[in-house]
Amino acid sequence: MAKNITNPTEDYSKWYQDVIREAELADSAPVRGCMIIRPYGYAIWENIQASLDRRFKETGHSNAYFPLFIPESFIQKEAEHVEGFAPELAVVTQAGGKTLDEPLVVRPTSETIINHMFSKWINSYRDLPMLLNQWANVVRWEMRPRAFLRTTEFLWQEGHTAHADEKEAREETERMLRVYEDFAVTDMAMPVIPGRKTEREKFAGAVDSYTIEAMMGNGWALQSGTSHYLGTNFAKAFNTLYLDSSNQQQFVHQTSWGVSTRLVGGLIMVHGDEHGLRLPPRLAPIQVVIVPIARDDEARVRVMEAASKIAEELRDLDVRVELDTREGMSPGFKFNHWEVRGVPLRLELGPRDLDEGHVMVSPRNKPGRDGKFTLSLDSLTERIPALLDEIQKEMFNEALAKRESRTMDITSIDQLKQALTDAPGFYRVWWDGDSEDEVRLQSETKVTVRCIPWDQPGGTGKCIVTGRETARMVILARAY
Amino acid sequence: MAKNITNPTEDYSKWYQDVIREAELADSAPVRGCMIIRPYGYAIWENIQASLDRRFKETGHSNAYFPLFIPESFIQKEAEHVEGFAPELAVVTQAGGKTLDEPLVVRPTSETIINHMFSKWINSYRDLPMLLNQWANVVRWEMRPRAFLRTTEFLWQEGHTAHADEKEAREETERMLRVYEDFAVTDMAMPVIPGRKTEREKFAGAVDSYTIEAMMGNGWALQSGTSHYLGTNFAKAFNTLYLDSSNQQQFVHQTSWGVSTRLVGGLIMVHGDEHGLRLPPRLAPIQVVIVPIARDDEARVRVMEAASKIAEELRDLDVRVELDTREGMSPGFKFNHWEVRGVPLRLELGPRDLDEGHVMVSPRNKPGRDGKFTLSLDSLTERIPALLDEIQKEMFNEALAKRESRTMDITSIDQLKQALTDAPGFYRVWWDGDSEDEVRLQSETKVTVRCIPWDQPGGTGKCIVTGRETARMVILARAY
Repeated sequence: MAKNITNPTEDYSKWYQDVIREAELADSAPVRGCMIIRPYGYAIWENIQASLDRRFKETGHSNAYFPLFIPESFIQKEAEHVEGFAPELAVVTQAGGKTLDEPLVVRPTSETIINHMFSKWINSYRDLPMLLNQWANVVRWEMRPRAFLRTTEFLWQEGHTAHADEKEAREETERMLRVYEDFAVTDMAMPVIPGRKTEREKFAGAVDSYTIEAMMGNGWALQSGTSHYLGTNFAKAFNTLYLDSSNQQQFVHQTSWGVSTRLVGGLIMVHGDEHGLRLPPRLAPIQVVIVPIARDDEARVRVMEAASKIAEELRDLDVRVELDTREGMSPGFKFNHWEVRGVPLRLELGPRDLDEGHVMVSPRNKPGRDGKFTLSLDSLTERIPALLDEIQKEMFNEALAKRESRTMDITSIDQLKQALTDAPGFYRVWWDGDSEDEVRLQSETKVTVRCIPWDQPGGTGKCIVTGRETARMVILARAY
Repeated sequence: MAKNITNPTEDYSKWYQDVIREAELADSAPVRGCMIIRPYGYAIWENIQASLDRRFKETGHSNAYFPLFIPESFIQKEAEHVEGFAPELAVVTQAGGKTLDEPLVVRPTSETIINHMFSKWINSYRDLPMLLNQWANVVRWEMRPRAFLRTTEFLWQEGHTAHADEKEAREETERMLRVYEDFAVTDMAMPVIPGRKTEREKFAGAVDSYTIEAMMGNGWALQSGTSHYLGTNFAKAFNTLYLDSSNQQQFVHQTSWGVSTRLVGGLIMVHGDEHGLRLPPRLAPIQVVIVPIARDDEARVRVMEAASKIAEELRDLDVRVELDTREGMSPGFKFNHWEVRGVPLRLELGPRDLDEGHVMVSPRNKPGRDGKFTLSLDSLTERIPALLDEIQKEMFNEALAKRESRTMDITSIDQLKQALTDAPGFYRVWWDGDSEDEVRLQSETKVTVRCIPWDQPGGTGKCIVTGRETARMVILARAY
């Protein structure tokens, strides 16, 4: 067990904070609910951004930038939207030494201001579809902040698109949820369940909200990305109209979709262990760390020369390599340093290794002596990239197996309560309840309906709250 | 002359707005002083970001993210800093439905909050240097906004570094100004004059400020990037101390440096002409546009096939190519569309061109018939990348020649006034004045001291305001 890191089975919440501090991912800010993302944490976010941005562009989207400040009157134009966001708003009332005539809301999301611009830019069916994305900071006043998962200010991307009809907009909504799913699975090595949100859980202003839900190390759910079909709700509030090909005025159909720095929290909790962070190679800022080991100056020269050569060869293959040349630190100290930070592969290189023509390889996902093995020096450029791919797959499979082992079919509230006591996880139940049933279930058990999975089992069963026969299966879980 | 674009010699300010509108770079926001950066404008900013970010990382800096909100008391800790920024602050007083105990300032820059964190993270000389950068939005309440040049909210990067001593911090200050200079020259094709700011023009809280100054198309100066040596001013205000190798507590010496979306305004004004935008190839979102020309369906099939093949071959060489396949638009309309947007190279391809085995090439920096020439189809993959490099150089040389032709040696205030009437530009003068002299000169002539160039002519002369003999030459100009 790593020094200063609580065992996750003892106190998961404390473990989470310990990992963030020891891996230097983030720090708390002097403003309540805000955080500072430290370089190592930000480098993970940069890799997430790059990978998502590529996917957005491949699917035809362009980035743009809309203002941080939104006139208060804009937020109030869509009834459900203002009701949902009002309690979380931060408001600028003073600027340039004066009291503002109209207070400015710090954006909690940008549907309103983007619709204001769409209504100006969109005139004819030839202007559609309009496919935009924005990388930005947003602010939602947070009563119970948690680093990465729930902070007053967070970084995110928000996609906003306008289409000629419902069919096209719904296709876009699904396409972008699938993009998030592919990213989560391929790059984060994080299995997710795509599905629809219930009325109670959907976005304030949407017709339908969709989500990918992931299971964290403690069995809780993390809503990891959402995609909304907004219908014509905002178009009607902002008069976003276009002239169709038969010269009729029509409201555009819209979507919005987003993921945030919350994904960094997801990475920590899906893969982290009692030794600290574990990063999937595709998102790791450092994929391979080389620790040279030498007891005297002569050995040091030899070892450093060989280690530099390995680092250079791997970098030529676009492997992200760190060579730990720090002096005055023991190998054990360095091993721990990189282990806590979740670097996927550690190479240890001493004079005896050089004599024998190999390096000692220690994969982060198999810690301790048992996981170590040697690789001949001349096989590294071939084996290391392949090993990183293997680790990526192993981490996904491990997370999937863990999730499956903690997913249960539940048929009664009593059984649900027992399961929550035994081992929190995902619970598959038949569901025909409404929003009131959800509120009641949550106050009784703390679980919520995470989603109505797109992948339904078929057949029917008795709803866990109403007892009515239904064909709808949902996932219940405690959630962040 | 392009439709809807005022001639720059007639009304430069209107020309600037016209280019921004017609090239769809930005739009004004419903909040005073803010702007929306539209996809084409944002794509330019993304290229600027990528190129600078690579340079920052190559010089050892890491990105991090600090909060948008700064407690009001922080801003007040450094006397010059608060005095400089107080009139421009936007302040959140309401949040989460309540009045805040301490108002929160929306960051105008992050020195204060970063020092708060530095004082926690920096303990020993081993923690130094600390080399951070942040990409972020900042807010400075703006009375006379101008798109890209001066907006209430703008996007920028701010570097913040802490060092053990003055020498190292001053080296960093200079290194980063040189990074900006290299970026401006190499990627923006924009000649700049690096130098020191006078006391009056320096950053609020700095010991010394440095700048790169560029000449816009109308002869005015644009401060395009700044780098500040902050001394121990913020360290003393925030108690940012470290233990040196002889176990003594020392204040860190700091720097900060930044460039912003203002650079997009610089690009427009350095290179734009009466036909619209002109983009240097290295920063152009689209480097080559291919316009297929066909009058009937048979020709269209042939031409489109050949054009697609050219596009594909160039993309394989990482050339950013757009194939304009839009229907129902004349070639002339398309030519104008891409000309206004400043695409460096246009390839025109019709059935007769195909018969003759060539394309018609029209470089944006040589508009009209005279600039056109043909290239054989089989030479494109070799010639196009080379042509883009040539255009990049030509644009720099043209901008440099223009600046030199509008730079004068001036020895008296009367001569200065005459020159300003004849042709605004850069004026080299001997200078031994103080801040009061600068205020007086500005109120009389509207020019300011842009910088004390690092590259001094040597020798001495009579100061233009005091008449005293001095070895210091400065650049005077009207400035944005």
